[in-house]
Amino acid sequence: MSRIRTTVRELAELVGGEARGDGDREITGVSSIEEAATGDIVFAESARHMKAAAASDASAIIGPLGSDATGKPEILARDPRSAFAQVVELFAPVRKVEPGIHANSRVGENFRCGREVAVQYGCYVGSNVTLGDRVNIHPLVYIGDDVTIGSDVELHPQVAVYERTVIGDRVTIHGGSVIGSDGFGYVKVDGKHRKIAQIGNVVIGDDVEIGANVAIDRARTGSTQIGSGTKIDNLAHIAHNVKIGENSIVVAQVGIAGSVTIGSNAILAGQAGVKDHVRIGDNVVITACAGVIGDLPDGACVAGFPARDYREQMRAYAAQQRLPETIKLVRELADRVADLERRLSEGGPP
Amino acid sequence: MSRIRTTVRELAELVGGEARGDGDREITGVSSIEEAATGDIVFAESARHMKAAAASDASAIIGPLGSDATGKPEILARDPRSAFAQVVELFAPVRKVEPGIHANSRVGENFRCGREVAVQYGCYVGSNVTLGDRVNIHPLVYIGDDVTIGSDVELHPQVAVYERTVIGDRVTIHGGSVIGSDGFGYVKVDGKHRKIAQIGNVVIGDDVEIGANVAIDRARTGSTQIGSGTKIDNLAHIAHNVKIGENSIVVAQVGIAGSVTIGSNAILAGQAGVKDHVRIGDNVVITACAGVIGDLPDGACVAGFPARDYREQMRAYAAQQRLPETIKLVRELADRVADLERRLSEGGPP
Amino acid sequence: MSRIRTTVRELAELVGGEARGDGDREITGVSSIEEAATGDIVFAESARHMKAAAASDASAIIGPLGSDATGKPEILARDPRSAFAQVVELFAPVRKVEPGIHANSRVGENFRCGREVAVQYGCYVGSNVTLGDRVNIHPLVYIGDDVTIGSDVELHPQVAVYERTVIGDRVTIHGGSVIGSDGFGYVKVDGKHRKIAQIGNVVIGDDVEIGANVAIDRARTGSTQIGSGTKIDNLAHIAHNVKIGENSIVVAQVGIAGSVTIGSNAILAGQAGVKDHVRIGDNVVITACAGVIGDLPDGACVAGFPARDYREQMRAYAAQQRLPETIKLVRELADRVADLERRLSEGGPP
Repeated sequence: MSRIRTTVRELAELVGGEARGDGDREITGVSSIEEAATGDIVFAESARHMKAAAASDASAIIGPLGSDATGKPEILARDPRSAFAQVVELFAPVRKVEPGIHANSRVGENFRCGREVAVQYGCYVGSNVTLGDRVNIHPLVYIGDDVTIGSDVELHPQVAVYERTVIGDRVTIHGGSVIGSDGFGYVKVDGKHRKIAQIGNVVIGDDVEIGANVAIDRARTGSTQIGSGTKIDNLAHIAHNVKIGENSIVVAQVGIAGSVTIGSNAILAGQAGVKDHVRIGDNVVITACAGVIGDLPDGACVAGFPARDYREQMRAYAAQQRLPETIKLVRELADRVADLERRLSEGGPP
Repeated sequence: MSRIRTTVRELAELVGGEARGDGDREITGVSSIEEAATGDIVFAESARHMKAAAASDASAIIGPLGSDATGKPEILARDPRSAFAQVVELFAPVRKVEPGIHANSRVGENFRCGREVAVQYGCYVGSNVTLGDRVNIHPLVYIGDDVTIGSDVELHPQVAVYERTVIGDRVTIHGGSVIGSDGFGYVKVDGKHRKIAQIGNVVIGDDVEIGANVAIDRARTGSTQIGSGTKIDNLAHIAHNVKIGENSIVVAQVGIAGSVTIGSNAILAGQAGVKDHVRIGDNVVITACAGVIGDLPDGACVAGFPARDYREQMRAYAAQQRLPETIKLVRELADRVADLERRLSEGGPP
Repeated sequence: MSRIRTTVRELAELVGGEARGDGDREITGVSSIEEAATGDIVFAESARHMKAAAASDASAIIGPLGSDATGKPEILARDPRSAFAQVVELFAPVRKVEPGIHANSRVGENFRCGREVAVQYGCYVGSNVTLGDRVNIHPLVYIGDDVTIGSDVELHPQVAVYERTVIGDRVTIHGGSVIGSDGFGYVKVDGKHRKIAQIGNVVIGDDVEIGANVAIDRARTGSTQIGSGTKIDNLAHIAHNVKIGENSIVVAQVGIAGSVTIGSNAILAGQAGVKDHVRIGDNVVITACAGVIGDLPDGACVAGFPARDYREQMRAYAAQQRLPETIKLVRELADRVADLERRLSEGGPP
């Protein structure tokens, strides 16, 4: 993969911004302020972010016109947000598709596809499958019957897409992920778990990215839904009939049980879990390892198990740290109170 | 997948029960009371369950003769349990096998198989493999040498079954699961971890279902055992030499460490973990996210980390919520006791 | 897989040690003391370990010359550690490679490989791939462009190795693992998560073993690094830019977030999690289910969430168990103090 190298001056010209400081500084990537390394340019939307960016390892900053100088090379723009979007686009990964169906792949009947589609080595594509333009199916991928996939989609090696899944445009799914496996549903009859037919599907919106070895179950009836712009990290579990809104973030190893509803712009941090049938609003933050067992309103931020308000939980953690000493103090107080009671009962102070 | 549509009246005739209420109500599926949606028929074994079913979204209820009317259409039967079993059977997923070994699959020497077996596109089947009747091996599956598989088994795409695994009848394994990988066993010699040979296998009983991207390790010696009727959800980890009894439930992302023994009819809820060598009895419930580090007797129900009795743990959670205010109160009491002590020492009440 | 059977006497001769007790005792494997079963020989480096070994199910013990008799057959050696290493070697799993590139596999241009290399059925190998000697690529493996792999490496079925990955000598990767998928990196622009190009790679040292369905992301830039001798269990998640030192242990379902640094000889027990950018020293032990959110110095041993010193956390767990009764006592004390205050205010003892 060739790496783009440019300078602050060239980027300023590209976005129509004003370069300040060392215009020859080499820029090789774009990043968030938190993750910035040498060579990165970052976006600061306010004076506070300008300060944080100045303290980071970033090599340059895009910020609003009129910002104070940070000491780092800067590109100042009237609309710095859209300037940054242009720069992100410049550094975006390039999709290299060599079109064609590999002779050693098997494509079923009634296959329809757009332009510049690649079905690489050793893939199985079922019947009645539709692919849009510029779809890149990497080697050893499985696509079941009646699957519909949009344009500019990339399925990495070993992905399995079960029958009747619907995938939007600009979706990327990484190696080993399974989309559309049966939900985990049984009824107990005479002491045995009898399988309940899982006849729904999975519907994935546009601009979704799914990491490696993820499992997303199809709905029992209806659809398990992943909203447009939502990103899912490695080894996450999304059960049957889950509905996730738009632009949400599901970090690695999160588990979401059956029929959970999650709003838009939510963040579920690593290893968090959500109980079945729970309803979670928009803009919710579930911190790492939290276990959510009840509904959460819009904007909630929770931690711990059972998950509750983040600040309260932080206070509870702090209190727990002081617990052994507190218990010691309580015991001591109990002795002192008993002593006081004894002294008072004995007729007043000795 | 075609969906069955029937009515309450038709189902009542099928099971020899008595229809009450709207016999024309359309039924399209079967469900537990908790998961019921419109179109579902559910089973209520007692008056209490009849009430819960009445409050659910189910479209109809199967219950005992003589039950009070719920307002929903009902099928009343002398043996409602077996009536329900018949209905579950009716809605069970239909297995559609197109028999034959695909030309682009590779089957090793000494291959034996029953009737109506399908080995679909791009599979690898090792030497000395035996398959029963109506086995359906989906595309891109790996089966190692000396594997024995019963009848009516379905292996979904990308499953890997290592050598010497034994699988019973009516087993389903979903995409990407790995059965029989080496146990995680080393001895440290001179600061380096030296691998201990893992020469056992995995033995899976009848009527087992295993979700997507599960990992079940083979035993170091002997067998890792999954009992008949046990169901395992996505992304679970079952280590070497684990033994799970019959009709147990292992929910998604559960981790079971080496040499753990689990009884029958146990439930391990999502993301729970069990320490190595722990012995867990029959009918045990391990709630979500719990971490079990010691043995559990039959019928135990535990929560938290380290896991302990569910009710005690619920009390402990409630107490933790009150902890910050409790610490505040203790400090206040300490001041008041000190004040009392001072006043008593100064010669009695002022 | 044929199993080696030998006797204590034969092993004593092999290692030049002194047999004591029943020299005819059959030995079929080697083990740690904790995991020992009948047929195993174990290593005891001190009198304390001799006692533990005596109490285990091991069939024989290798220990230092001059040890007290344990009642079990023993092999006593001047250098018992290297004697044990010889025995471990004897029981090590035998690698059986049938060399050759299967006709139904696809190997790209500029392929270089050493002697006795097997690329089994249905594999995809990209361009510019280099394999050392005695490499065994199991069926249905994917290897991307520009991958370099050392000698004596075994890739089990369904493994996916993304482009530009570097793998050392004597590495084993189990079924379904994905090495080199994109890191989970986005910047939010106008409410949408824009992907940051992930153009680094994964570098795996020598003598590494990786379990089934593991996910290791490539670095954003630079390399995600797994040090020589480190062992990673099933379903672990290693994010972009993580660096793990030598001879560390990462147990099943552990999650390590982006840019974490871990030293050598560390142990991360099952289901533990580490927050992004955290630095963890050498010889650290992170116990099962712990959540690490801050840096840890060499030798730290931590538990709980948020993880802190193991012993303190154990005391905190014990205190939490007593919490409900403590709160009860505090309330009772509050009443008694109020009573004392009332009595003193009323003019002294009644």
